[in-house]
Amino acid sequence: MQVWKDYQVTHKDRFLEELLELLRIPSVSADSSFSKDVKACAEAVKLRLEEAGADKVEICPTAGHPIVYGEKIIDPALPTVLVYGHYDVQPADPLELWHSGPFEPVIKDEKIYARGSADDKGQFYMHVKAFETMSKTNTLPCNIKFMIEGEEEVGSANLGIFIKDNKERLKADVVLISDTAMLSLENPSLDTGLRGLSYMEVEVTGPNRDLHSGVYGGAVANPATILCKMIASMHDENNHITIPGFYDKVQELSQEERAALNAAPFDEAEYKADLGVDDLWGEKGYTTIERTGIRPTLEVNGIWGGYTGEGSKTVLPSKASAKISMRLVPNQDWKEISALFQAHFEKIAPKSVKVKVTTHHGGSPYVTPTDHVAFKAASEAIRATFGKGPIPMRGGGSIPIVALFEKELGLKTILMGFGLDSDNLHSPNEKYGLANFYKGIETIPYFHKYFAEMSK
Amino acid sequence: MQVWKDYQVTHKDRFLEELLELLRIPSVSADSSFSKDVKACAEAVKLRLEEAGADKVEICPTAGHPIVYGEKIIDPALPTVLVYGHYDVQPADPLELWHSGPFEPVIKDEKIYARGSADDKGQFYMHVKAFETMSKTNTLPCNIKFMIEGEEEVGSANLGIFIKDNKERLKADVVLISDTAMLSLENPSLDTGLRGLSYMEVEVTGPNRDLHSGVYGGAVANPATILCKMIASMHDENNHITIPGFYDKVQELSQEERAALNAAPFDEAEYKADLGVDDLWGEKGYTTIERTGIRPTLEVNGIWGGYTGEGSKTVLPSKASAKISMRLVPNQDWKEISALFQAHFEKIAPKSVKVKVTTHHGGSPYVTPTDHVAFKAASEAIRATFGKGPIPMRGGGSIPIVALFEKELGLKTILMGFGLDSDNLHSPNEKYGLANFYKGIETIPYFHKYFAEMSK
Repeated sequence: MQVWKDYQVTHKDRFLEELLELLRIPSVSADSSFSKDVKACAEAVKLRLEEAGADKVEICPTAGHPIVYGEKIIDPALPTVLVYGHYDVQPADPLELWHSGPFEPVIKDEKIYARGSADDKGQFYMHVKAFETMSKTNTLPCNIKFMIEGEEEVGSANLGIFIKDNKERLKADVVLISDTAMLSLENPSLDTGLRGLSYMEVEVTGPNRDLHSGVYGGAVANPATILCKMIASMHDENNHITIPGFYDKVQELSQEERAALNAAPFDEAEYKADLGVDDLWGEKGYTTIERTGIRPTLEVNGIWGGYTGEGSKTVLPSKASAKISMRLVPNQDWKEISALFQAHFEKIAPKSVKVKVTTHHGGSPYVTPTDHVAFKAASEAIRATFGKGPIPMRGGGSIPIVALFEKELGLKTILMGFGLDSDNLHSPNEKYGLANFYKGIETIPYFHKYFAEMSK
Repeated sequence: MQVWKDYQVTHKDRFLEELLELLRIPSVSADSSFSKDVKACAEAVKLRLEEAGADKVEICPTAGHPIVYGEKIIDPALPTVLVYGHYDVQPADPLELWHSGPFEPVIKDEKIYARGSADDKGQFYMHVKAFETMSKTNTLPCNIKFMIEGEEEVGSANLGIFIKDNKERLKADVVLISDTAMLSLENPSLDTGLRGLSYMEVEVTGPNRDLHSGVYGGAVANPATILCKMIASMHDENNHITIPGFYDKVQELSQEERAALNAAPFDEAEYKADLGVDDLWGEKGYTTIERTGIRPTLEVNGIWGGYTGEGSKTVLPSKASAKISMRLVPNQDWKEISALFQAHFEKIAPKSVKVKVTTHHGGSPYVTPTDHVAFKAASEAIRATFGKGPIPMRGGGSIPIVALFEKELGLKTILMGFGLDSDNLHSPNEKYGLANFYKGIETIPYFHKYFAEMSK
């Protein structure tokens, strides 16, 4: 629509400036020393929603970080889209690997470098600006509700409570989220599912204090060695996960479904070159697309114990710990998997150590039916602005709350992400393409238009 | 000798005060941010040696931390004892586990709590005060040379150079060191050997950047997982070390020698209770005394990689690292073992990762012949002040430089330690008993007396 295009061209620079301003707020939800910044970010989101034309904008307190809610109901008879996003970001460390400050956004090679640029500030903000476009040009084709939370990166526990307590307020016809990636701007894709997550922390304790490795070495179990042995045993020689019962509920796809998935463009040589690895690694019998989409995984996200400073210290540590998370696929249940993990970890611990297993958070996997009217609307929106329809893909990441939207609100979710896998999400030098940002703002209004039309 | 006893009783409190002052200097050699403190500690040692009566006291610069040298030559025809010790200490972390500041010594339950109290400030300082006792009472029975270094905890690399460059100055008949433990004050023991050391650092690199564990998890080798698998594989099911060639030169003791070692008092229940462990761990077929004395070991001293902060971060890390050290026994050569480790580690690395192996430092194992005149003098000195002769033991720790004293100076070393295994060396709450400190000062003059007499 020319009126949208004109509006967006006129306000292009301001849209970007406003995003950069949001990116300057270090809203790290995992680290309590940033709580003030998280709160400031919620205030900024509230202000922008109001300016864009939303009503009843409110910072909703929770037991943790607040949720920003806002809505524009133009006609209760029209369909309603619930836009979900998150204004919190992952921790920025290791800081020394960033080429510029994680919270001092810079534009380089047509990309915005900053923590949160793609995940998810740059993406949810496209929705705010798409909404502004429709609102200010009086072309809003349906009702919109915004729910932008501050705890996605730490498991959305309080959002779950908020949803249960606000079912009436959140009534809608579909949930729309941009917090995933597409193959490329040349090969747009649309996620049909997300993996679930179970995030655990383990602590192995050997002796009750750090010991001199010469005096006691060789006679007392070293918790770092034992932890390594326990982690090592969790993948067998085919890289299958060895936790008993882990695969019991995994949905096996048909040969046709697998063939369809593997038809997506994938260049292994390019993939390896981008990552700087000589060889890939994964579960025997599955392709890379399958390993990251339809198969569950177990990854060590962090490990630590003993002396890790400069030089050497001949210590036999008292404790060693690891953060271990599992990505889950339909129909694995994250609480069940967390319990299986815990039971297994406790069982394989030798008597010479004590172990403590904690569940950080989790979420169940999710699949979007491709015949849903909103999926079709999203496909058409992409066709309208990209010139070609999207390739359906399974996303490897997790948005734990999506399964809850279905359970509590009865809503399906459309995962219309505009990022790229190479955006360095959760890594140093996270980036988001300017073209992706503007393409998102351009495409989203079409989703609302088609969804309203197709829902008639 | 009554004159020694009288002198020591009179100056008892000052001896302790001076030690506490030394302990207040955080002379951590491994961490360059303490270099000024290390230097200040060398200055303090110089001053105390001068006050005690030493001549030609000098701070000898090296490429690293300086060595303090001093001597008292009363008659070139008399035998000369070279006293070695170190004024540097291990890093104090983890700081949160100390009950009082590591560099704010406190006396509690008749023990001095401070980093370096036992290792080695409290022990080398006994020699300074024993020397003062003999010097001020005009009873020195032989010549003494002091060589107190500042890099023992980081491998003594520059001391090795100093020794080669100062063979004439260091001419002596025996080396005397107090930097080890005895069984207890009730069961004094004397070490007949030390284990050698090879201290390595390994780094495993997977992808060239930290990755999102959802987007890439399951398809790219996780360096933390791979490092765990590599470390896990280094001990087999009998806790034998799997590096090819590792045991080739290990001296196997005869059944008689093993029986003699195992005759030392050892209470396994008490040992486990002190460490808070339900089960011991070690090489199959050997007792705890053997595992810590005559068998080589491989210990993880530190491990780190990925996100180790508060909460959770779903990262697939780019790198994971570990500090791994091996304790060696006669006739293992530390450089050979370091090379075997490196070759093995590189060989077992899968193609999906890159590894880097660095040698921190090392030292060869050492054995003191029990028929050496100085060993007999040490035994008699202990008998004179403890009322019973010492049990010969193999020490599990390492003083890498001892093998070099023999190689470069042709000198045997007497390991007359007065510490206890439970002194928390290299751990939080390092301590040294007041009784041990004073017993050392009392015993050492007898060593010089008997050594001078027996050498006639």
